[in-house]
Amino acid sequence: MFENPRRQKQLHKFVQKLGLPSTTPVDWSLLNLALTHPSISHTDNYEQLEFVGDSVVRLIAAELLLETYPQEPVGEFAAIRSILVSDRVLAELAETYGIEPYLLIGTNATGNPVGRQSWLADAFEAVLGALYLSTHNMDLIRPWLDRALKIKAAEVRRDPARLNYKDALQEWTQRKYKILPEYRVKENKLFKSSVNRTNLSVQTERFLAEVWLKDRCLGKGYGRSKKASEQAAAKEAFLTIRDV
Amino acid sequence: MFENPRRQKQLHKFVQKLGLPSTTPVDWSLLNLALTHPSISHTDNYEQLEFVGDSVVRLIAAELLLETYPQEPVGEFAAIRSILVSDRVLAELAETYGIEPYLLIGTNATGNPVGRQSWLADAFEAVLGALYLSTHNMDLIRPWLDRALKIKAAEVRRDPARLNYKDALQEWTQRKYKILPEYRVKENKLFKSSVNRTNLSVQTERFLAEVWLKDRCLGKGYGRSKKASEQAAAKEAFLTIRDV
Repeated sequence: MFENPRRQKQLHKFVQKLGLPSTTPVDWSLLNLALTHPSISHTDNYEQLEFVGDSVVRLIAAELLLETYPQEPVGEFAAIRSILVSDRVLAELAETYGIEPYLLIGTNATGNPVGRQSWLADAFEAVLGALYLSTHNMDLIRPWLDRALKIKAAEVRRDPARLNYKDALQEWTQRKYKILPEYRVKENKLFKSSVNRTNLSVQTERFLAEVWLKDRCLGKGYGRSKKASEQAAAKEAFLTIRDV
Repeated sequence: MFENPRRQKQLHKFVQKLGLPSTTPVDWSLLNLALTHPSISHTDNYEQLEFVGDSVVRLIAAELLLETYPQEPVGEFAAIRSILVSDRVLAELAETYGIEPYLLIGTNATGNPVGRQSWLADAFEAVLGALYLSTHNMDLIRPWLDRALKIKAAEVRRDPARLNYKDALQEWTQRKYKILPEYRVKENKLFKSSVNRTNLSVQTERFLAEVWLKDRCLGKGYGRSKKASEQAAAKEAFLTIRDV
């Protein structure tokens, strides 16, 4: 790595963009790996660091939520955290900190817009993994990441529609009961019967989902797609279970 | 907390049992909370610390697996970690370190043997959360936990039958594809038809499970119970997917 002064310079620049001083004790070869997509090398890439970084961001989010909203019930934390650590939010953060120009990635991979959110999030997690492993604490991360995560957490709390209720419910049932909720989706009978008769709003809701935990139905929901009906069922379940 | 010298003494003793010196900079009121079950107080109990501790043990397990088996593929790490952080293993560790006598818990809760594994694991995670938050690094944890986790990791690698393949598969698909596998369980037709005719071994396998990821069937498995058939399907899927 140190034989490539151009890459070394790039990585220094990236660390400065995070707001860290140039004397920061970064393990540069780890940071180099964190910014190397598997399309460049099957063996020397960000995958292992991403595995570490995934836990790093979960821990930081937990700590930060506890510090910022000490009165909030734990179910709420779990729901908010599931969003903060989602690919969507992590990819947004990767964009904010302008990771992309520093990431070594094959053109095959960049050409595919579907995977973009995924590799941005993965590389971001890997960077957190590399910075954590550089010092074995959060000193190189929290100084810049806390502010961004706090803003995201406040956004989620202001606008619960941002919540992915399926993720939130899963987070909750796994933590609390150690099992996953089960979705059962059917065609909505009301939809079928009304299609040829009236313009009832139920017309558009083609699917009916139920979400079950063991032998208990926790919620029901209608939607135009299977996914939408599951989200609606998860929302009902989550809002009920949270208030228990 | 400090008004109760008896509790303070107990907590000191517990920290010594972990092998930490008596001068350890523990946040004693956090440790007191970590060792307080919700049956004692609805508000001042281990739940928030457990939320933090859950991420702490995941991070430590990730770091330790990377240090101990640097050549292992990441899918393997994910599978092993899902066991290391399972309630079963965490409850075993809680027993090893003799948490129970230090845990404040109502008799209602201890009377229920079903929940025992769960609250032992929860309290153990909460203790890790309290120790992490005492110093904001792993200095109070890794000196004693590493050895125990390494032993468990080696056990899992020696005897893959210890693997909970459903957990392992889920860990893998969520990390890799950001979705959960879906199980479809049916009555096993062979079972039904053979019951009255022969003694084929298929007789005992009443259920047939398939595990799907999006539109792809990853594996099939038979079992005496729904759960067993799902585990069998998950095993086939995990062993296939891991080698891709």
